[in-house]
Amino acid sequence: MPETALSDRARNTPQSPIRKLAHLAIQAKKAGTHIYKLNIGQPDIKSPREYFDGLRLFDEEVVAYEESQGNENLCKAWSKYINRTLGIHTRPEQFLITVGASEALMFTFMACCDPGDEIIIFDPTYANYLGFATISGIHLVPVLSDMDNNFALPARSSIAGKITDRTRAILLCSPNNPTGTVCSREELRLLFDLCEEHNLFLILDETYREFVYDDLEPFSIFNLESESNRVIVIDSLSKRFSLCGARVGCLLTTNEEVLAMTLKFAQARLAAPTMSQFASAYMLENIKDDFLEGVKNEFRIRRDALYSNLKDIPGVIAHKPQGAFYTVVQLPVADADDFAAYMLGEFSHNGKTVFIAPAAGFYMQQFQGRQQARFAYVLNKNDIEEAIRVLSAGLESYARR
Amino acid sequence: MPETALSDRARNTPQSPIRKLAHLAIQAKKAGTHIYKLNIGQPDIKSPREYFDGLRLFDEEVVAYEESQGNENLCKAWSKYINRTLGIHTRPEQFLITVGASEALMFTFMACCDPGDEIIIFDPTYANYLGFATISGIHLVPVLSDMDNNFALPARSSIAGKITDRTRAILLCSPNNPTGTVCSREELRLLFDLCEEHNLFLILDETYREFVYDDLEPFSIFNLESESNRVIVIDSLSKRFSLCGARVGCLLTTNEEVLAMTLKFAQARLAAPTMSQFASAYMLENIKDDFLEGVKNEFRIRRDALYSNLKDIPGVIAHKPQGAFYTVVQLPVADADDFAAYMLGEFSHNGKTVFIAPAAGFYMQQFQGRQQARFAYVLNKNDIEEAIRVLSAGLESYARR
Repeated sequence: MPETALSDRARNTPQSPIRKLAHLAIQAKKAGTHIYKLNIGQPDIKSPREYFDGLRLFDEEVVAYEESQGNENLCKAWSKYINRTLGIHTRPEQFLITVGASEALMFTFMACCDPGDEIIIFDPTYANYLGFATISGIHLVPVLSDMDNNFALPARSSIAGKITDRTRAILLCSPNNPTGTVCSREELRLLFDLCEEHNLFLILDETYREFVYDDLEPFSIFNLESESNRVIVIDSLSKRFSLCGARVGCLLTTNEEVLAMTLKFAQARLAAPTMSQFASAYMLENIKDDFLEGVKNEFRIRRDALYSNLKDIPGVIAHKPQGAFYTVVQLPVADADDFAAYMLGEFSHNGKTVFIAPAAGFYMQQFQGRQQARFAYVLNKNDIEEAIRVLSAGLESYARR
Repeated sequence: MPETALSDRARNTPQSPIRKLAHLAIQAKKAGTHIYKLNIGQPDIKSPREYFDGLRLFDEEVVAYEESQGNENLCKAWSKYINRTLGIHTRPEQFLITVGASEALMFTFMACCDPGDEIIIFDPTYANYLGFATISGIHLVPVLSDMDNNFALPARSSIAGKITDRTRAILLCSPNNPTGTVCSREELRLLFDLCEEHNLFLILDETYREFVYDDLEPFSIFNLESESNRVIVIDSLSKRFSLCGARVGCLLTTNEEVLAMTLKFAQARLAAPTMSQFASAYMLENIKDDFLEGVKNEFRIRRDALYSNLKDIPGVIAHKPQGAFYTVVQLPVADADDFAAYMLGEFSHNGKTVFIAPAAGFYMQQFQGRQQARFAYVLNKNDIEEAIRVLSAGLESYARR
């Protein structure tokens, strides 16, 4: 009897470029090497006290299903929080609470697209978009953003040139994972107008909205277009409040049909986690604005430490990112995948090494980004400085090997 | 500019038959009517103290991402629990932890099937299977199980007759939602042999495994076939431990390729909730067997109360279910959908009414089950007795209207 074969879509789903070297890291750790993990967007910032306080206030005897559309108080608190911080006017009924932004993206893809339909994205892109697309049978059509131009939004004509009769949406993450680039209001306006012209959805992944530095202020597509039925915002508490493991995200839109359709998907999976939603509602109601100010300041310090130490390494090309907590850096190696594996599998410096995410897996287009890696500046200043010293030693050793 | 159209798959995803009358229930509740909710599998059993204890023991300062395959201690504890209660030999590496059984089913569907492939199921079926199938582009092919035969597994020839060259799997839920029917070892053997013969996956949804009554003992497909690469078990803590809102489920298989492929889906969504997994691991390590014995005994009492009160209502055809906490009942009405809406929207008896789930939505085949409803016996004995009195009054009133 032959083995029962698995589906093509399972075989074609790409491995996460962030996690695919994890087995080497496990071995290095077992061998006693300290690993500076710059590969994954898992901040070391303490989760807010208010989240844990909220959990302790849960006094139901049964951990029952939450409503499929989400905890009512959480929708209210999130809407209030967004309205207060952005000066806009969302309503709680416009929220669908999801298991992280991941599920919100998945629901959005499925609501907007049938298999074979296309969504335009910008290369390099958040790698898991590719996973969701393969799962749901959607073609992501990449428009290359240029490292030499600090990964700014490509020209209108480059984007328009990719629109076909199967295009259903344009998806943008800003502030961007993996590049750290922040879209300007003018660029967002251009994208929205393009969507208007071609009758497309505009999906904005605003997971990192508050993480903008220097003279930038956080803003949302809702600041430009608060009532358009073609706008779908994806949001998450994971990064902003260092609650990656809480798995609380949302989809936000004024489009009632999108809400009704994604609610059907939400009903099929029953509900998002009950206690985590309860605690998140309490946290959003009670947290002070200085929490985020403190976090933002800390990330700015880390960004500066990363950039100023990276830029002096011979052969490294780095830009100063303006948002999120990532940057894509060019390394003086032919194959960053091989170098990243070398760092984990063969190299250590004073018992330490660095885990970076090779950038090729963030590009939809083949043969792009082979010399690049994504760095997540999620460690404190001292650790980042030491990590870059170790990386520099690793590059030298790799070149000599 | 026309409205941006949504996908066919979104429009074709069925509404949950369990939740689609929820808006009427909300109105009735607002009008002050007490509603006995027999529509949804949300038990009122207190969640185990050990789960809340586990939560309090979480002492990390950051609620970070859990590993994509799940919390290591949870996999160990779940494997130990299953091995102890069933006398089998699973290993922690054979588990993938998911956001409830829902996600495990979704991952399994996508790993086994490409769009257009077929999975054989038994009608009536767990309604959300239809949702997952529409989302993932899979055709569910129903084999009708007969109410007159207490929804027992159909004859081998009826099942074999549905197998085509697109069939990839047979999916069975036992003890069954919505019928409460428990498959015998001989029936499971028959299904497994059929899968061997036609090289299909056998997917067993064992969410209700321990809920078997009278002289039945819990068993798993792993008791029959512990090493077969065609067996995938879906499991969940939701019902067994009254932890529906914890969203902790799993996929369990010895098939390493299935584990590797579903892990890629799991990596794309990052991880299941961190603290809920931590607490679940602690609970499984520490809970005593008498918890489940007590729960089972309580459900047996409720089942007896439901059955003995239902069977005497004129025109009602009820069977005594042997497992889970559901039963499908024939009512003396032409359209149970209309009757269920009547009970919520127009009827009350001493300020009370009953919420039941019309069974048509549990059938894949059209025009089946129109006179039937699913009852979840998730309320205590007194409430069930009163609910059936109210239902009986409702039937009389509905007949006279």
